[in-house]
Amino acid sequence: MNALGKHLLLELKGCNKEVLNDIGFLREALLAAAGEAGATVLGESFHQFKPQGVSGVVIIAESHICIHTWPEYGYAAADIFTCGNSVQPKKVAEIIVGKLGSKNHSIAEMSIGVSVTRVA
Amino acid sequence: MNALGKHLLLELKGCNKEVLNDIGFLREALLAAAGEAGATVLGESFHQFKPQGVSGVVIIAESHICIHTWPEYGYAAADIFTCGNSVQPKKVAEIIVGKLGSKNHSIAEMSIGVSVTRVA
Repeated sequence: MNALGKHLLLELKGCNKEVLNDIGFLREALLAAAGEAGATVLGESFHQFKPQGVSGVVIIAESHICIHTWPEYGYAAADIFTCGNSVQPKKVAEIIVGKLGSKNHSIAEMSIGVSVTRVA
Repeated sequence: MNALGKHLLLELKGCNKEVLNDIGFLREALLAAAGEAGATVLGESFHQFKPQGVSGVVIIAESHICIHTWPEYGYAAADIFTCGNSVQPKKVAEIIVGKLGSKNHSIAEMSIGVSVTRVA
């Protein structure tokens, strides 16, 4: 199957609620995951919600890594979108799972741009 | 079904290739889609690739809107993540489809954080 990219949808349950509300920790975790997986970071945007929760995105040359956290549920959703083969999105996902200490996670993988053809 | 959010995965085929390489147009399109759907924009990051292609993300109070384009295939992949009920992600998707003039698109909807429970 020929695809332009992969999109991994990651659900992280059973995370430490303090970690999920720590924007500095989450920013470092995503940047470290990108770096350790060999991705090139081009931009980022993180936001702290009140009373709790963080949204963040890292734009990488290979596409993006996003996270949204709900500390009150010990829950975070992340997604990792990559094109090309230089970065393995599962490696990014595994690093994020480890850093957030999720006790129960799931990963769904979608293929993106399957069998599209070049235009003139 | 009780869920924390919705994640729409949007594939846009048959788009104008000039539009897909126009970072200014795409930025305005995503910001307009967010605004018209009632979302609150908190941050953004867009990047122009060489020789072609754009990646962009808008962080909204309700989560995020991302796009990645492949002008050479007339193709773009977007995803819209929302929590709460104040913004309808399908409305965001429809606005993006219209602005990019996609002749053939698909939308997959995922429910996020289904039946998670509050932690102490």
